[in-house]
Amino acid sequence: MKKVAIIGGGATKCGKREATWRELVQEAGKAMFDNVDNISPKDVEALLVGAAQPERFVFQVHVAPMVAEHLGITPTKVIATTELMCASGQAAIRYAWACIASGMADVAVALGVEKMFMPDMAEAQTNMTCVLDREWDGVNAMSAPPFFAMTAQRHMHEFGTTKEQMALVSVKNHHYSTMNPIAQFQKEVTVEKVLQSLMISPPLNLFDCSGITDGAAGVFLVPAEDAKKYTDTPMYIIGSGQASIGNAVNNLASITEWVPLKLAVKEALRTAKISVNDIDIAELHDCFTISELMEYEAFGWCAKGKGGKFIEDGEPYIGGKIAVNPRGGLLGCGHPLGATAILQSIDILQQFRGEVSRGRRVKGAEIAVAHNLSGAANVHSLMVYSRG
Amino acid sequence: MKKVAIIGGGATKCGKREATWRELVQEAGKAMFDNVDNISPKDVEALLVGAAQPERFVFQVHVAPMVAEHLGITPTKVIATTELMCASGQAAIRYAWACIASGMADVAVALGVEKMFMPDMAEAQTNMTCVLDREWDGVNAMSAPPFFAMTAQRHMHEFGTTKEQMALVSVKNHHYSTMNPIAQFQKEVTVEKVLQSLMISPPLNLFDCSGITDGAAGVFLVPAEDAKKYTDTPMYIIGSGQASIGNAVNNLASITEWVPLKLAVKEALRTAKISVNDIDIAELHDCFTISELMEYEAFGWCAKGKGGKFIEDGEPYIGGKIAVNPRGGLLGCGHPLGATAILQSIDILQQFRGEVSRGRRVKGAEIAVAHNLSGAANVHSLMVYSRG
Repeated sequence: MKKVAIIGGGATKCGKREATWRELVQEAGKAMFDNVDNISPKDVEALLVGAAQPERFVFQVHVAPMVAEHLGITPTKVIATTELMCASGQAAIRYAWACIASGMADVAVALGVEKMFMPDMAEAQTNMTCVLDREWDGVNAMSAPPFFAMTAQRHMHEFGTTKEQMALVSVKNHHYSTMNPIAQFQKEVTVEKVLQSLMISPPLNLFDCSGITDGAAGVFLVPAEDAKKYTDTPMYIIGSGQASIGNAVNNLASITEWVPLKLAVKEALRTAKISVNDIDIAELHDCFTISELMEYEAFGWCAKGKGGKFIEDGEPYIGGKIAVNPRGGLLGCGHPLGATAILQSIDILQQFRGEVSRGRRVKGAEIAVAHNLSGAANVHSLMVYSRG
Repeated sequence: MKKVAIIGGGATKCGKREATWRELVQEAGKAMFDNVDNISPKDVEALLVGAAQPERFVFQVHVAPMVAEHLGITPTKVIATTELMCASGQAAIRYAWACIASGMADVAVALGVEKMFMPDMAEAQTNMTCVLDREWDGVNAMSAPPFFAMTAQRHMHEFGTTKEQMALVSVKNHHYSTMNPIAQFQKEVTVEKVLQSLMISPPLNLFDCSGITDGAAGVFLVPAEDAKKYTDTPMYIIGSGQASIGNAVNNLASITEWVPLKLAVKEALRTAKISVNDIDIAELHDCFTISELMEYEAFGWCAKGKGGKFIEDGEPYIGGKIAVNPRGGLLGCGHPLGATAILQSIDILQQFRGEVSRGRRVKGAEIAVAHNLSGAANVHSLMVYSRG
């Protein structure tokens, strides 16, 4: 299996964009080709597009060939769209990685895109109700916010976690996103502001939830041995983990302990041949504040149930035990489903390159993980990247 | 790059099924596990699901984890859904192949599924209008039938192809499908019957068009070196080609010559190290009768424009120059989008094993190709399989 590198990438500004789906793709495409000097559209042999549900958001299927068209590329080896809901972008990275690692292609693009703002936002919200098992969970009015609300309630009940502790995740990630020019949310929030924001699903307020977001982002993958032909500062894929446990909520062995995440972390560390303490940056899937708290626990940075205390103590900040979401996370940057994982990987690459602004820079970072969950946290996908 | 084998598979009966999407998955899952003796759900490390648009047909996204749940598997290495419209199933096979070829997993499942019959069939038809570029082609009322009708008209104009010649494709494929117990259509048709069937889009009548179909099918992939642990009769992936030229109709250099198909054929032959004359069975994407005629030409079994004459002369029948669609094709078997490519691969495996009924058996077959086109024939995907 060949070692694989990411040699560059580019993204749109994320948020409520006055841009169509295809304009988002074009904007990300231009940014990504601008980011790597000696690569041209004709070099791209494989294109993997991460998109969660363009079929509903923009009434368009067969989107990978459309992306090819708008990037001006004609992939000669591999083309497909990958869907894994909130982890669709990571699925694209992973398939592109497999293409290069197996030798099927020498230059691959993984591009993620989602246009979520619709003329009728009730329709956009309806689209999000077909994520969990529609027949088993949908009939119980279960969609993402109530699921994570239920998770938060149970975590509060079992471990004494407080709403204030959850709010701190939002405060941290909004703080970092103010220093990220492409982030959707550019204002600081306070614990008070989070607690006073609109109640979405108790105990989750508006600022406990990631947003509806338009955005697109793409990266180039090549064999590690070729990376220096394109850039002095590539980053390398050194490990991964992906684990799942069905789709319906009733599959979860526990709602306060994400078993597939623990398995994915174990596999990611094993394949990367590192320990959890070697990780300098963790881009974790903070779709809701409770998620991030539970992820501290699953990685083992703190004991089970102590996620709230961990952030109270300042540990997941830059300079603490582990820098979690210095990009601004989904809470600060928004969550354009198919694009999210690609945005994470680009930000990690920029961290390694020292290109992010000083206030959110993790100095000397060598190893980073990027995590996405999907569905009712049944599926967890992890990539491990290194600078050297 | 490791050589990869398909060691078995199973499928549902295809057609208008009184079965839900999840029942189709369960039925295919049982059939596939029944087909391989010493494999159990816990052995499956990678799951790739081919599905074109469950988001619209059954209002469900995040379908790969649902398939995992209904097959009783918990993939420990890779899980994702692949979409490439009519080639979505082949995209799943290709990603599964990359997982095994790269060493990322040792046992992979590629399962394709589509539930296309809806309570309101007008909605099902509407879903098919978002396949081509909705903003460029959709506004011109372009969907698959008018696109292939336009192609047929131009082919008739340039080369003198007749409606009768096109009808012969339908006659042949319906003939073979009467001997395929899982095929949607079980009755012979005649040239007269095709010509007298409902006009869909001139010159294409109803029996020039593949059907709306419910169906699911899955196969197991393993490293070739492990194949004999599971079966005495695996088949091997020996080559592939995939090429594309955007999505909008106006990208096509010509509508009567599919440039990406010619490129994909060339690449498939190159990677398989064979010539076109080595192919014993060709499962070609006959979504419309005109498609199959043009595919004879693109493979080079006959000269450009002579596809009609080729079938008049009996050449694409078993015993002719090349056995095309002895399975019954999409015209005879139906076209459950995500499942189609998997159904083709299973039928080829059964041909190699001598398991198909005598009247459609290609004796001594050693090498087969499976082809899918998608969109406005902008994308062509090819796999090459061998018996030994």
